Formats: sequence, structure tokens, C-alpha cells
Amino acid sequence: MTDATARYVYPGEPPLHEHLWPDTARVSPEGRLSIGGLDVAALAREYGTPLYVYDEETLRGRMRAFRSAFAARWPESAVAYAGKAYLSLALCRLLWEEGLELDAVSAGELGLAQRAGFPAERIHLHGNMKPDNELDGALEAGVGRIVVDSLDELARVAALGEARQRRIAIWLRINPDIATETHVSIQTGHAGSKFGLTITGGAALEAARRAAASPWLNLAGLHAHAGSQLFDATPATRVIETLATLAATIHEQTGSTIRELSPGGGLGVAYLPDERALAPEVYAGAVCGALRTASERLRLEPMRLTVEPGRAIVARAGVALYTVGPRKARPNAITLAVDGGMGDNPRPALYGARYHAALPERMNAPATESVQVVGRYCESGDVLVQSASLPQAKPGEILAVPVSGAYHLAMASAYNLVPRPAVVFLRDGRARLVRRRETLDDLIRLELT
Amino acid sequence: MTDATARYVYPGEPPLHEHLWPDTARVSPEGRLSIGGLDVAALAREYGTPLYVYDEETLRGRMRAFRSAFAARWPESAVAYAGKAYLSLALCRLLWEEGLELDAVSAGELGLAQRAGFPAERIHLHGNMKPDNELDGALEAGVGRIVVDSLDELARVAALGEARQRRIAIWLRINPDIATETHVSIQTGHAGSKFGLTITGGAALEAARRAAASPWLNLAGLHAHAGSQLFDATPATRVIETLATLAATIHEQTGSTIRELSPGGGLGVAYLPDERALAPEVYAGAVCGALRTASERLRLEPMRLTVEPGRAIVARAGVALYTVGPRKARPNAITLAVDGGMGDNPRPALYGARYHAALPERMNAPATESVQVVGRYCESGDVLVQSASLPQAKPGEILAVPVSGAYHLAMASAYNLVPRPAVVFLRDGRARLVRRRETLDDLIRLELT
Repeated sequence: MTDATARYVYPGEPPLHEHLWPDTARVSPEGRLSIGGLDVAALAREYGTPLYVYDEETLRGRMRAFRSAFAARWPESAVAYAGKAYLSLALCRLLWEEGLELDAVSAGELGLAQRAGFPAERIHLHGNMKPDNELDGALEAGVGRIVVDSLDELARVAALGEARQRRIAIWLRINPDIATETHVSIQTGHAGSKFGLTITGGAALEAARRAAASPWLNLAGLHAHAGSQLFDATPATRVIETLATLAATIHEQTGSTIRELSPGGGLGVAYLPDERALAPEVYAGAVCGALRTASERLRLEPMRLTVEPGRAIVARAGVALYTVGPRKARPNAITLAVDGGMGDNPRPALYGARYHAALPERMNAPATESVQVVGRYCESGDVLVQSASLPQAKPGEILAVPVSGAYHLAMASAYNLVPRPAVVFLRDGRARLVRRRETLDDLIRLELT
Repeated sequence: MTDATARYVYPGEPPLHEHLWPDTARVSPEGRLSIGGLDVAALAREYGTPLYVYDEETLRGRMRAFRSAFAARWPESAVAYAGKAYLSLALCRLLWEEGLELDAVSAGELGLAQRAGFPAERIHLHGNMKPDNELDGALEAGVGRIVVDSLDELARVAALGEARQRRIAIWLRINPDIATETHVSIQTGHAGSKFGLTITGGAALEAARRAAASPWLNLAGLHAHAGSQLFDATPATRVIETLATLAATIHEQTGSTIRELSPGGGLGVAYLPDERALAPEVYAGAVCGALRTASERLRLEPMRLTVEPGRAIVARAGVALYTVGPRKARPNAITLAVDGGMGDNPRPALYGARYHAALPERMNAPATESVQVVGRYCESGDVLVQSASLPQAKPGEILAVPVSGAYHLAMASAYNLVPRPAVVFLRDGRARLVRRRETLDDLIRLELT
């Protein structure tokens, strides 16, 4: 089943915009929303709100979809989950069970994964500023690849390799500099971006030269990132072409053979009813096709291909649940306050991100009004959903915001000293608390007097 | 000494833009920056980076400046610190010692203050969405005032009063609706804002009527908020006029006498060398003058005046310290990466906020280049300082960002699983760790398996 398939629970029901909800989302004849076989509003009342629920079937389904889409189209491929989208012990175990690798960006992400039993050699470490102790810790842990972002860092990694008398396997993070008038999303992603070694400026080739000359560095691969929340595969295929061309140049100029290539992640997801994400198969087809074409043209050695989906794996699996509070009639809108907001989901405040919302106890009730769902945080900009079409919501009712699985909890703050939410994984009618709600004691725990 | 007074450490030295740094900031003949008598770079190396240091003298000085500015100009006044700007046990003790009250916006802020020994009756509770349990907990704690934000909440507070057989002292949060073509900052703050009871819509007067009719509510005061980061007092004086007029109307229509008035906070601070903040005395003069004029015109009973500065008290007292990492030459800029960023300071990403920066070990060295200071977080938008004029910074060097005391730590996240910074209070040559750095164990502590 692809993302965009419409699936009605039974004839005559209003549509549950299914491409925005977890795979197991169902609406009962009474209009109650369930996920993983569990009544969503009942979960909110049992665990309290704000609550984040994740559907394990959707998580595993997305992991498998990416794995099989690439496995079917390329001889040697890996799907490395971009941990920055959302990381937890429970998720790491699923990643491991489903055969994914991990893209980590800090000692914290690496450390959490290791605590979950995720093997360090299947993790690669990204980042434009890896503090010395984190870099050293990652080598100590035996991290699979260090993705070197700058010439300064290259020298540091070589020095650490020498200190350890060990050859360090690295990728180079390339700034593809392929911004053109026609690709605004790439321009946003790359023109003047702080990441990577530029090709046009010569830093990329210089890094390859220095790596080839160092006995402590093994230049295993090239990596670049096309952007974020992309709805077509063109940026990724252009990155592939750029990296493949660079691999050929590096081979010609330094003799090094690049065996690993990664076009990063950035695949978008639908947040709103009228948005449609690219299916993993379509994305894989484009990426593998581009690599095949480039490899043949440039006569490259066989490459191991690593893709790094983050949001595309976890976003739709997660649903945020809130309790409705005061309602106000304003000159231009009705506002409905909920007990969460920019603390648990900073995306609207950061990016103007827009969301869908529903009342999980009355999924069949017709929408009678358009409301602005505002958060509880003391800031005018704390608007969670700019415009939601809903039946008239009553204080105490539960409100569900789908596509909440990525870049919410990962970026959550304790702003206003509001504790961060609990997280529950759902599967086959069973709920499993994987993160307990923060308490006042937790908030004060680091304080000394 | 007012904010804008220039103070040179000794003749011939380049200026330390003093209105951006704590009162005790000094530059040694060797060009080293000290705060509270302590060498800043040495503190960074001792406690690690990112590190937040606060100068107690500046904190206390700002608290006293506001207290005395209002005490000198109004018979009965209170300065209630807006806890959302930055709250900690250590700060609460200072607030208490300096005779301030506290504006809290959640059970968490109220609870932390109580843990610090701050008496609940000197706290008032704000918020557009106070969950039932938080409201009930605040009443149980004996919070001084509940600032009622909506008609829905008014009914809930009355019901809680009845359940406790106790009359609850409330303020009404008024949405002053005074947006005009000439005051963009007010428009931003209020037009369509989610906060408060509107006057034009009739909700404010209706709330006063209902409060007067309820045996469980004591309508003690009126409150409104003029906006944020304001550089002139006009919005505050307009709020005063609006509230005073409403108080007169309420008296006329319901017989209730309003005895407490609060124009909120919102006083701006300078973040950049060419910005100048309003001195507390000037602000107090304008606010008290407006209240005096309105009180005489409307023949109001004597009012207790409560102002709520947050940023204006803590911002300049705090300095963020980072370690410099890789440097890159880009087509249009030089980027300098540091080991913090949008995790500890989300303001640039959220608001496009701009900052000043300096190298605390080379304050006397002439600036030789303009750099973009980028953070370590895996996001293109993680740019900490858009443009800083600095001597060429070397990896491993310390970089200081002044005016970091407000809305950094309070909004900090563990994005990328980067632990949140340690906090040190400085006074008379002594450093006191008031919050220890978060660890991987802390990050994982809430996780279950």
C-alpha cells in the first residue's frame, strides 16, 4: 500500500485523511479513532496529555519499505535512519531489528544508540562541529564512519588516528553547490550553507588529496545532503550525479577509489490533506537510476549506497494528543487552546509549519467551524494549527495532531517549565510507555544551590 | 549608572560595548575579559562549554533599579519578575532577597519557586491555558493571584473556589485591542493575539460582571501586556490608560473597585552595539505618569501597580561561552563553527535575533574580519551570530556572546541529543555552579524499554 492510497473504513464514512495517519488508524462506527488497535482518546486519558503515541506497525513498515525499495534496485545498499528526527531506546531497538543503520550527529545520539545495544560500527557520525571529546569518544566506541565536514576536522581526525595508531574510515561531507535558478529547495539547502566541503572552492578535492596522503585516513565515501522536506527526487539525483562525478575526479587525481556514496535524506512527508509524499519506491528508483547512469558513464567501481531518511520513517507513525482548554471568539477567528504547543512542537514557531487536527472521539461528526489551535505557552507565536476544520470542540475533549513523529520530541524544550510529554508505543492492541512524562523533580534535578 | 553610559577600563583601550555586558565586565591590560572578578575564558575551560555565566551584581542591580524606580514614583508598587525569561533555584533566591514578586506561567515555574523558598502568595499565575490540575495545585499552594485569561477559565476558577469554599483573588487578563496603524509593535503583540479578554468584544466587562456576581471570586486587578522587546514606553502607557478606563467602567457597571493594575512587561534590551534600551527610571516615569493622569481623570481609588520585567532583568547579566571549531571560507562569508547553537539559543532560528560576539582572551586585538558564527546543530538555519567583527579566531579558542541571559536556557532543547549547558553564577571573584551540565544519563533517564 502506498502512502496515497485512500482506505475507507466502511462505506459512507467521512474520509480519515489516511495518508496523514498511521497505517493502523481506524475509525469505529461510533466515530472513535484507534491506532494499533487502541482507542486514542482512552490512551490520552490514561497517560495524560500532551501525549505522543507511535504506531510500531507504521514505523516497521516504513523501515521495511525503504530497505526493500533500495535492496530491489541496487546491489549493495543501506538505509541509515537520521536519528535527529526522533531517537529513543525503543526506536533504536526497532531500527536494529529491521536491519537499518544509524546516522548520528552527536555523542549523545551515538551514546543512546549504544545503550540500546545498537552496534557502533553500523553508525556514522555527522556534524559540522564535532567537539574533540565527542570525536575521540566516537573513535573509542568504534563508530563505523566519521563524516568529515571541513579541512580543519580532517586534520583533527588524522591526528586522532595517529594517536590511536589506527586508520580511520571517513566519508567527506560535500557541499554540492548545485544551487541554480530552477531549484529553490536546493538553494535553500545549500547556497551558503554551513555544511561540507565545497567543490567549486576546491576544498573537497583538497580534502581527498590530504586523505590519500595520510596513513591514518581511509577515504571510504562521499556524502551530501539535498535539502529537507523535499517532494520530488530531483535534488537527490543531482546530488548523486555531483558525488559520482567527484568520485571520478578524486580517482583520477589521487588514485583513491570511492566505494561508498550517500545522497543523505530529506524526503518530505505530507502534513496536510492536499499534500502527497513521494513513495519510497519512486524515490529509490530515481536515486538508483541516477547512480547507475553516472556509474556507467564514469566507469566507477561498484558503490555501496547509503540513504538517510529520518522524517520519512517516523513522522506519520507519531500522533500528538492534547486536551482542549478555553475557546475564544476573536474578530477574525475562533481560538481553541490546548495543553501543549511550542514546547513539544516548535515547528510552527520555527518554520511556519502547518498541521492537520482531528477530534479522536468524534471522527464522524461533520466539521462545523474552522478554528486556530493555540498552544499554552506564553508567547503570541505559539499557534499549533493555523486552521483546523472541526466539530465544535468542548473543554476537556482530546485533540489529535497527526504527522507528529519527527522533529517534535527531538526539538522539545521545557519552556515555561512545562514538563516534556510521555511517549507510548502501540502495537497489536498493547501500549508500552517508552518515555515517562517529565516531572518537576526532573526539571529541578540539575539545579544546585 | 544607566545602561548607555560608556565606561572605558583605561585610556586608549578599544571600547567594550559596555551596555551589552554585565556591570562587572572588565578588560585587563592583556586584553582578557573578566566578569565578577573572574577570567571568563578560564571559567569556560574549567566548567566546559557551552557555558552560561551570570553576574550576580548585574542581576541584583537590575532588580534594585526597577524596584527603586517604581517605589520612587508610585505609593504602592511591586516588581514581579517574569519567570519565563529564565528561572532557576539560584535566581529565585535572589528575587526573594531583593524583594521582588514572581510572574509564573505554569505549575512548573510555581513549583520551582516554592522549592527555592519563594512564598506562593507573592506569585501570580498567568497563562491562556492552565490545565485543571495546575490550577487546582496553584490554589492548594496558596498562589497570590490567578490571572484569568478567558470566560471559560473564570467559570473553572469559580467552581474551584466553591469546591474549596474559599474566595479566590483574581486578575483579569485584558486584550487591550489597541492596535493602530502607528504602532506595529502593539499590533504584533495584540491584534488577533490568543491572550486575554477583549474589551471591544465585551468579554472583559462580562467577566467582571460574572466575577462580581460570584461569591467565590474577588476581582482584585486588571492586567494586560503591551508586547515584547519594546524600546519605548508608549505601548505600556497606552495599556495603563486602557486598563484604567476599564477599571472605571467596571466600577460603574458592577460596583467592583479594582485596586491592582499591571501593564505587564515587555521592556526591551540592547543586543547590538547600536541599540539602546530604555532605563528603568524612564520607563517607570512614563508608566507612573500615565497611571497618575488616568487615576485623576477617572477619580480612581489608589491602585497597587505591578510591573513584570523579565528580559530587562536577566538578559545582560548572562553571557554564553562557546569553544570555536572549524572555520570555512565561503563565497560570501567566513563561517566559524562553535559547540553550541540553536539548542541552547533558539532565538536566532525563532525570531531572526541578532547578537554581538567577542573573543574574551583577545578583547584588545583589532577586528580583522567579519564572520558568521554557526552552531553545531544539524540544520542550515542554525546560525548563532549573523555577522561578528573579530580578530581571526583559532579552533579551541573561547567565544563569548553577551546578552544571553533571557530566553536562551528557558527555551533550550536537547536537540541532536546535545546536553544542555551548565550555568555558573559569579560574584566577588567567586564562581558558583547553579546548574550542572546535562549528561547522557540525564538524557536517557526518562526512557523506558
